[in-house]
This record gives sequence, structure tokens and C-alpha cells, in this order.
Amino acid sequence: MKLYTYFRSSAAYRVRIALNVKGIDYDSIPVHLLQDGGQQLLPAYRAVNPSALVPALDDDGAILTQSLAMLEYLDETRPAVPLLPGDALGRARVRALALAIACDAHPLTNLRVLKYLKNTLGLSDEAKQEWYRHWMAEGLAAVEALLAQGDPAGTGLFCHGDSPTMADCCLVPQVFNAQRFAIDLAPYPRVARIHAHCAGLPAFAAAHPSRQPDAE
Amino acid sequence: MKLYTYFRSSAAYRVRIALNVKGIDYDSIPVHLLQDGGQQLLPAYRAVNPSALVPALDDDGAILTQSLAMLEYLDETRPAVPLLPGDALGRARVRALALAIACDAHPLTNLRVLKYLKNTLGLSDEAKQEWYRHWMAEGLAAVEALLAQGDPAGTGLFCHGDSPTMADCCLVPQVFNAQRFAIDLAPYPRVARIHAHCAGLPAFAAAHPSRQPDAE
Repeated sequence: MKLYTYFRSSAAYRVRIALNVKGIDYDSIPVHLLQDGGQQLLPAYRAVNPSALVPALDDDGAILTQSLAMLEYLDETRPAVPLLPGDALGRARVRALALAIACDAHPLTNLRVLKYLKNTLGLSDEAKQEWYRHWMAEGLAAVEALLAQGDPAGTGLFCHGDSPTMADCCLVPQVFNAQRFAIDLAPYPRVARIHAHCAGLPAFAAAHPSRQPDAE
Repeated sequence: MKLYTYFRSSAAYRVRIALNVKGIDYDSIPVHLLQDGGQQLLPAYRAVNPSALVPALDDDGAILTQSLAMLEYLDETRPAVPLLPGDALGRARVRALALAIACDAHPLTNLRVLKYLKNTLGLSDEAKQEWYRHWMAEGLAAVEALLAQGDPAGTGLFCHGDSPTMADCCLVPQVFNAQRFAIDLAPYPRVARIHAHCAGLPAFAAAHPSRQPDAE
């Protein structure tokens, strides 16, 4: 198993957590999003992933794209440590939490969007920061509300019950981003509590950007 | 089954297609995103879906959020007409196509973002249109590249083979949006061909925004 990754990519971070939680060995192939005008845009990487986005997962020659599709695939093909609960409504809840982050929060705050705001729209640093804070706050508030709604029936030590799921694989990288931009987590006590619990676990800690071979 | 929907919401449109393809009867409950300051923001709807986003799905009292989580749930609980292929790599491919639209393309062009560009950043209509065209083009190009990579091994009459999947449930609403903004589909021949094929099918046609009870 090979993971094309960038240490600070949220989507790659999700997959690193899932691989670690499941105890799957993998090799990291760094793709630097800021060097060479963005190594993900070079022909060599486009041949791997034509979307030109990180991460990509190589499972014995089969190339997978999209972090959440990878998590589902890993769960189907390596089910020993499941990332989804056993019941359909529980799975829907976990996926909804993961998607609330992956579809509603993260896409508005990632690197290519921030570059467009600065380079194409000519936004000031202040306006860019305000954009970031706005969409991060919207996203975290939505996740907190979903967690509160399922509290205590669904929410436990983790987003869903007392073992990690796909939702936690998404929540931890999103909070990492929030912390980088000094977002106050006080309005999101469940998010903060679950993040703190996960951060202390070896599988999550080993996936942290600062622990990657390409970390700066 | 009840679907909280808005006729022009891409995410609701995806779920309407899935329900129709599977032949599941449902009642539409319109939530108007532009009336009353956005009916999705009112306490009555937040009690249903605390994310304040459309759609929400009510299956006998159980409330589901996030369109892709609904598609997975419908496929698990009503498997007679599957929306995912039988093999793990095929499922990963279909999910990657769906997520390329739902995570990478659509979030940047939806109503709440366009409102922020106009109301908060004070962007001109021209700059707003350019934003829309830019991210729509990025998204459609990524989907076209994924389809081309799987052509002919994966891509068929539909995004994956010759029966509809979750990928088609996402592709058709995205193309509907592109057409509303007069985006030229010529650079995306596979996207255009699959859209045209789907559009002619009753299950897809009945889910079209113009055919909804709240259509304007």
C-alpha cells in the first residue's frame, strides 16, 4: 500500500489516520503542494490522479482517489477494525458527520481556494482570514450541532460511540486546521473533547502532520 | 419516506434521483432557500436538521442528513436496485466520482457561497460569474479526467457501466447547474454524453427541478 500524501493536507491526514487505526502498513510518497508550482499539477502526478488532488492510494497497482472513497474501500477490504458501526442508521450518522466536514467545511478553506482569493480576487490578508474563520465556524457549528443531537445516544468518547469511525478521521484534521488559524474551540465543546481524546491515541498521533517524513 | 427539498438544490436533486431510480415513494416537503430569509435557517427546520442545509430525509421518524449518506443508506436498506457496483474497486471508483462532484466542485458554487461573495466581499456580478465558471470548470474537468481514465473499462452508458450509480445521481444535478450558467460542455464530452443519456430516463426526468411541486 502506497499513499501519495502531503503532510498538511487534511484529506491525506484522514487516510493516514484510517490506515493507522486499522494497523495497515504503507509507504508515504510525498507530493509537495507548494513546490514546483504545485507538484500535484505535474504530469507525473496527473498520471496517477487526473484530478490533480492529494491524496491518492495505490493498493497493489490499483489507484484510488478521494479520501472518503478510500476510507470506505479500506473498511470493505480490511474489515478487522471497522470504521463504520454495524447498523444502517449508525452508518448514516457517521457518514453524515464525515461529509459535513468533507463537503461543507473543508472545501471552502483549502489551499487552492485561499490561493484564488489572494491571487485572482486580490483579497487582503484580513479578508482572507475572515473568509477562513467564517466557513470554519459554520462547519464546526454544524458538526457540533450534529454531535449534540446524537448526545448521548450516538456520541461517545468518539463522534459515534466509543471506538473511532470515519467521522473521527475527518474531525481531527479539521480541528488541526482550526488550531493553525487560532480558531477558538470553546463554542464547540463536543468537537474539542473528541479531538482531545483522539489526539492522545497512538494511531491518531502518528498521522499528525508534524510526524510525517515530509514535515517542515 | 419524506424528503425536505428545494427544487433547485443539487443535493436534494441527487436524492430525488436515487429515490426514483429505486422506485421508492416519498413525499416532498419544500424548504425555500430564498424565502423568509432562508427557510432552512428557521428554528422549525433546524429542529429537523441542525446543519440548516437541504435536504433532510425522514425514514419513518429517523432523520438523515447529507445527500451522499442518504444514498448509501438507501442502498443498504433498499438494495433491490443497487446504486453501487458489486466489487470493491468499482465501488471506490463510483464513490470517487460522486465525491469529486460533492466535495470538490459543488461546495464552491452553491448558494450560500455566492451570497457571501456578493454580500460580504462585495464582488461584482462579473467577478462572481468568473468564480462560478472557474470552479465549475475545475470540477467538470476533474470528473471528465476520471471518466476518461476508466474508459472503456469502467465508463459505459453511465459513469460506471450500463446502469445508474451514485455517480450519476451527482453528475446530473451538477450539469444542470452548469447549464443554468451557460457553461460550454464541449470540453467534457463524456460528462455531456452521460448527462444526455440520463436526462432521457423517466427516473432522472421526474427528479428535475422543473418537475418539482415547489418549482418556480
